[in-house]
Amino acid sequence: MVLLNDKILLEGDTVYLKDKKNSFFIKLKKDKIFMTHKGIIPHNEIIGKKYGDIVFTHKGEAFKILKPTIYEIIMYGIKRETQIIYPKDAGYIILKLGLRKGMRVLEVGIGSGALTIVMANVLSPTGVIHAYEKEERFIKIAIENLKLAEVENIVKIHHKDIIQGIEEKDFDAGFIDLKEPWLYIETILKVLKKGVPIGFILPTVNQVIKIIQDLQRLKFFNIEVEEILNRPYKPVPERLRPVDKMSAHTGYLIFARTPF
Amino acid sequence: MVLLNDKILLEGDTVYLKDKKNSFFIKLKKDKIFMTHKGIIPHNEIIGKKYGDIVFTHKGEAFKILKPTIYEIIMYGIKRETQIIYPKDAGYIILKLGLRKGMRVLEVGIGSGALTIVMANVLSPTGVIHAYEKEERFIKIAIENLKLAEVENIVKIHHKDIIQGIEEKDFDAGFIDLKEPWLYIETILKVLKKGVPIGFILPTVNQVIKIIQDLQRLKFFNIEVEEILNRPYKPVPERLRPVDKMSAHTGYLIFARTPF
Amino acid sequence: MVLLNDKILLEGDTVYLKDKKNSFFIKLKKDKIFMTHKGIIPHNEIIGKKYGDIVFTHKGEAFKILKPTIYEIIMYGIKRETQIIYPKDAGYIILKLGLRKGMRVLEVGIGSGALTIVMANVLSPTGVIHAYEKEERFIKIAIENLKLAEVENIVKIHHKDIIQGIEEKDFDAGFIDLKEPWLYIETILKVLKKGVPIGFILPTVNQVIKIIQDLQRLKFFNIEVEEILNRPYKPVPERLRPVDKMSAHTGYLIFARTPF
Amino acid sequence: MVLLNDKILLEGDTVYLKDKKNSFFIKLKKDKIFMTHKGIIPHNEIIGKKYGDIVFTHKGEAFKILKPTIYEIIMYGIKRETQIIYPKDAGYIILKLGLRKGMRVLEVGIGSGALTIVMANVLSPTGVIHAYEKEERFIKIAIENLKLAEVENIVKIHHKDIIQGIEEKDFDAGFIDLKEPWLYIETILKVLKKGVPIGFILPTVNQVIKIIQDLQRLKFFNIEVEEILNRPYKPVPERLRPVDKMSAHTGYLIFARTPF
Repeated sequence: MVLLNDKILLEGDTVYLKDKKNSFFIKLKKDKIFMTHKGIIPHNEIIGKKYGDIVFTHKGEAFKILKPTIYEIIMYGIKRETQIIYPKDAGYIILKLGLRKGMRVLEVGIGSGALTIVMANVLSPTGVIHAYEKEERFIKIAIENLKLAEVENIVKIHHKDIIQGIEEKDFDAGFIDLKEPWLYIETILKVLKKGVPIGFILPTVNQVIKIIQDLQRLKFFNIEVEEILNRPYKPVPERLRPVDKMSAHTGYLIFARTPF
Repeated sequence: MVLLNDKILLEGDTVYLKDKKNSFFIKLKKDKIFMTHKGIIPHNEIIGKKYGDIVFTHKGEAFKILKPTIYEIIMYGIKRETQIIYPKDAGYIILKLGLRKGMRVLEVGIGSGALTIVMANVLSPTGVIHAYEKEERFIKIAIENLKLAEVENIVKIHHKDIIQGIEEKDFDAGFIDLKEPWLYIETILKVLKKGVPIGFILPTVNQVIKIIQDLQRLKFFNIEVEEILNRPYKPVPERLRPVDKMSAHTGYLIFARTPF
Repeated sequence: MVLLNDKILLEGDTVYLKDKKNSFFIKLKKDKIFMTHKGIIPHNEIIGKKYGDIVFTHKGEAFKILKPTIYEIIMYGIKRETQIIYPKDAGYIILKLGLRKGMRVLEVGIGSGALTIVMANVLSPTGVIHAYEKEERFIKIAIENLKLAEVENIVKIHHKDIIQGIEEKDFDAGFIDLKEPWLYIETILKVLKKGVPIGFILPTVNQVIKIIQDLQRLKFFNIEVEEILNRPYKPVPERLRPVDKMSAHTGYLIFARTPF
Repeated sequence: MVLLNDKILLEGDTVYLKDKKNSFFIKLKKDKIFMTHKGIIPHNEIIGKKYGDIVFTHKGEAFKILKPTIYEIIMYGIKRETQIIYPKDAGYIILKLGLRKGMRVLEVGIGSGALTIVMANVLSPTGVIHAYEKEERFIKIAIENLKLAEVENIVKIHHKDIIQGIEEKDFDAGFIDLKEPWLYIETILKVLKKGVPIGFILPTVNQVIKIIQDLQRLKFFNIEVEEILNRPYKPVPERLRPVDKMSAHTGYLIFARTPF
């Protein structure tokens, strides 16, 4: 078995370079050059090395070559054109949707692709996400982000407003990130299998009220509403305490199973 | 591509049976009989059906046949001999550890196997978890739980106190769930690759202080301490509000990368 | 100046008796006898003593004589016929309403009188609360509770549904604890001075939405919505950590100032 | 009875001026002039008016004359030389300390006087706070802040490091806001009555561990540790939701009763 982190780094791989103060994401490309304020690093210097090695700038400054975590890719690596779904929520969503290898997942509203990356990472190598997005500029960024995370082969992006219908069907799970999901819920229901999990993220309580009403009306079952909060601490052993400010809210998570 | 939920249910598969009030986990076995207060269901009645079908007891009571989510398996399916790592934490841990297909992961302290299930689900089908556990009675339950979640082939369990050393090495990530992880941290450090993520869960601030001190002393970097809180709501659209009581604490999560 | 806790205990005073395991509230009355499982204590044995003294049962068991805090009176002393407003909320409410000596405060919905006690304690000795309550059985309990807290002389209770109007007027502040405050808001507005603070507590988001709409329509200003959460810790220095369960919700607090 | 808000405004009174966008605190002084970007207002124009009246700048811009709440005084009115104790904590502290009219309270570490204002407001008119502070520059600001809140007559400030002892004694309650309260706890214990409440605020868990150890060693009882969190919402009825960022931490609150 070839271990993931033992692999010789090749063109196309994503590395996370780090010194004491700075960190950078690089998608490796032959003959390209990476410039930092501490000197330049030709990509060719990294290609052929491994994660866990050190690379030096032309000024002799050392950078660690790391394999980025999914968390780091989402928080520091991807481009954001939209509000993203944060790791605290995304990690929970995949467990609530029951995502597993080989599943066929519907995503409506890909945004910047943060959740898509997290879901694709679980489904890989044999599952598929059909992601519908009506804004073309989001799609371009999402594709770039999926490539950074090396999960682009798991995702089929459809540039389309699903008000016109969804071609694919028989989905094992769905996640909907739309402002007015109730307008689309009957269309979505048609393409999900019976009894499978669906999730929503919505920032306001008004939206939560509206979608629950419709889920009840349409006989969805196991309806749940939750919030996930993340409280970071200053990691100083002599003076351990939470940080001063934390995120107060990203969105409410709503889960249900499709009716029989 | 054979879709996961399309598959004909076979012996060994786990199903989640649900009517309006009750739900049950069943590991299918030929000729076995499942008894509820609403009547009996021979497993043979379920074998051959699919997720999304209905099965009836001998009294004619209907049960939905569902594919359980990872969340449901952990919260309602597994046997618990120990405090488990809850989905709110487990989903976040896999993103912070950067778990991906094919990785080689060290777990010390398998407990009831809840986190192991979540990690194995991401690593599958080509990764491996080497899980060390010194309590034999935990191992028996953990194996049963891994089978319920159908991830037992991804996990190699070692019945051993790692104070005696760890045979395997070159791990891409590690998660440590021990009371006194500082006693083992140098042993663990030897078998993890350079620059890879490691995580800990600890219930008290005293333990957090102690482990951070040792991580700093040993030159681990990117040390982080966090809490994840989950606040459920009563899903009643006319009277939407949080529930009365929530979990105030499961454990502090500590993450770092191994030194170069 | 006679210090509060130096005073010789008299008939009518409230004492908080405490041994290692138990604690009791007693309203002192001559010739009355208090019975515990550790023996009897005649009230006359306490009358004439001071807070900070010890009293013994006829079996020789010692109890500390404490002055109860407002917190202890509310949490352990008062009778509860209704959901009460908890100290975490009540302490904040008095600061947001700007309560000070000599003020004239309107309270609608006295419930068990928990908030009334907290407000009266700040207004004393020269202020007044006019409390309106339509349920007679709540009033009886509230009066008993106000006496336990020794603030009954600050509160005038009106047994009345304010839909019939409010006789008093020119209030400096108001607090409304009703299920449908929007039905009464115009009546209430007439008796509050211009530009003064008003507060509400409401358990559901639906109620919050409704009352904010009406406050906006009626030109209230400085409208605010907040939640206060209280997270207790186990006070064990070797294993400091939050408790397992906490209250997830008591109510949303809404504040505003009356229009000019 | 003269009502607080009916009173004719006099020199020395504090008013809170507000238009749609701005708000200002003014301590009224004859012949003084207040300048805003919307024009000037002579204090003499406000003196003689009442709370609830309107005052105009020389350019004809209207400002409402409000009585500031204790919350507004602390959050927007006072000068801050130090980290202050916030209303969410201060309101709770006074209930846990059982503060009532006429009590004699010890405060060690007055800081900017935010908590002092809240405590004095409850004790008034017959109680007293003896506040010890070793930093002269804090005292100057605290006095100014107490005057703004009109509670300066309830507080006696001692410019002194209490390591040299405390002259006053027989306190009914104490609140300690020091970095290393354990260095002073035995000195403090001598001047508090038996069985009375004491409180501490400490930002780090290390300090909490240390003070609890000493409270236990010295036989304090009813030791409690708590956090209070305040989560504000955007008060928009069509899109009700929490704000984006909230305070993650101010300090841990520790309460106990002095030993017998």
